[in-house]
Amino acid sequence: MVVGKVTGSIFSTRKLDSLTGFKLMVVNIGKGKDDFVVAMDTLGAGIGDVVLVTLGDSARFACQNEKTPIDAVIVGIVDQSNYNL
Amino acid sequence: MVVGKVTGSIFSTRKLDSLTGFKLMVVNIGKGKDDFVVAMDTLGAGIGDVVLVTLGDSARFACQNEKTPIDAVIVGIVDQSNYNL
Amino acid sequence: MVVGKVTGSIFSTRKLDSLTGFKLMVVNIGKGKDDFVVAMDTLGAGIGDVVLVTLGDSARFACQNEKTPIDAVIVGIVDQSNYNL
Amino acid sequence: MVVGKVTGSIFSTRKLDSLTGFKLMVVNIGKGKDDFVVAMDTLGAGIGDVVLVTLGDSARFACQNEKTPIDAVIVGIVDQSNYNL
Amino acid sequence: MVVGKVTGSIFSTRKLDSLTGFKLMVVNIGKGKDDFVVAMDTLGAGIGDVVLVTLGDSARFACQNEKTPIDAVIVGIVDQSNYNL
Repeated sequence: MVVGKVTGSIFSTRKLDSLTGFKLMVVNIGKGKDDFVVAMDTLGAGIGDVVLVTLGDSARFACQNEKTPIDAVIVGIVDQSNYNL
Repeated sequence: MVVGKVTGSIFSTRKLDSLTGFKLMVVNIGKGKDDFVVAMDTLGAGIGDVVLVTLGDSARFACQNEKTPIDAVIVGIVDQSNYNL
Repeated sequence: MVVGKVTGSIFSTRKLDSLTGFKLMVVNIGKGKDDFVVAMDTLGAGIGDVVLVTLGDSARFACQNEKTPIDAVIVGIVDQSNYNL
Repeated sequence: MVVGKVTGSIFSTRKLDSLTGFKLMVVNIGKGKDDFVVAMDTLGAGIGDVVLVTLGDSARFACQNEKTPIDAVIVGIVDQSNYNL
Repeated sequence: MVVGKVTGSIFSTRKLDSLTGFKLMVVNIGKGKDDFVVAMDTLGAGIGDVVLVTLGDSARFACQNEKTPIDAVIVGIVDQSNYNL
């Protein structure tokens, strides 16, 4: 998993039916403003939260329907680390 | 998912049978002209649209036949974001 | 998918049984001489052809046996694009 | 797999239920301080240990429940190599 | 697949049970000394051999047990190429 900071959200009206109702957050996972992914969120993450993101095919398994075509999901909100993130 | 801008389309006559009928769009996902992927589109995205793209194995699950060998699909057209994309 | 140009082929005598009979092409997918992948080809792509390559786990689904351990396959030969590739 | 060094751990109270009880370690896999992943650990790796990490969808298969949405797991602790890591 | 050169091997006593008995080789896949992966080998590759490596989830399918959590496997030893590797 990677650690990132939630910096925004994305809205999309025309989308695949399988993504209906999903909350999509912009998560910066690098140093640059452009190093971000758009991740599904079910934990209620807010802007500024430091989060754990699972990338790739594994992300599907965080959905109720495992066949949802997503590749990034917030799996945890970090509250503490002994590593200087 | 990543955010990108549709910049063109691709045509291929000699292709795997499993890709017949697919609309393939060029989506720039980085800053450089060469940072693009070719993504399947079922939403009617047009050139200039800002889109959400799912990459990797998850993309297969946006196809009617989950065993289609694709690794990029447009899953949404972005209409709004509170993030300066 | 990514777009690349076929620049050579690879021969391997000692290989996994599951790869027997496969045609393996070198496909340049970047600007540098070293930005290449080795992709399975079933379309008869030749040196110089511009091709579409599916990367990652999805590539397996282009094989008759879906459990073949490959991660790159030529899924189409590009004949036209309105994008300056 | 990649080789990395364990440099810390991560704690998350609000997380997906499927990750409850998991030990999550920060593993540096590059030269920079920011080249790290957060990997599940079941081997008791400690800070300073050199470890082997499996990345991507394969990581799920190190979990008792294969449908756990993780993308990085420590699969071994390196005790010796004839390669100057 | 990517092409690389075998440069060493890795030994790990504390590892997941599912990796017991696996031969793990260090394969350089880039120009830098640090551009390497650790790949499972069942072909008897030796140091100096130029090999084909399958990366990612597909690598699991080279194992007798498809649920082995590995992400890199040597699938062939290259004996000839018309590409200057």
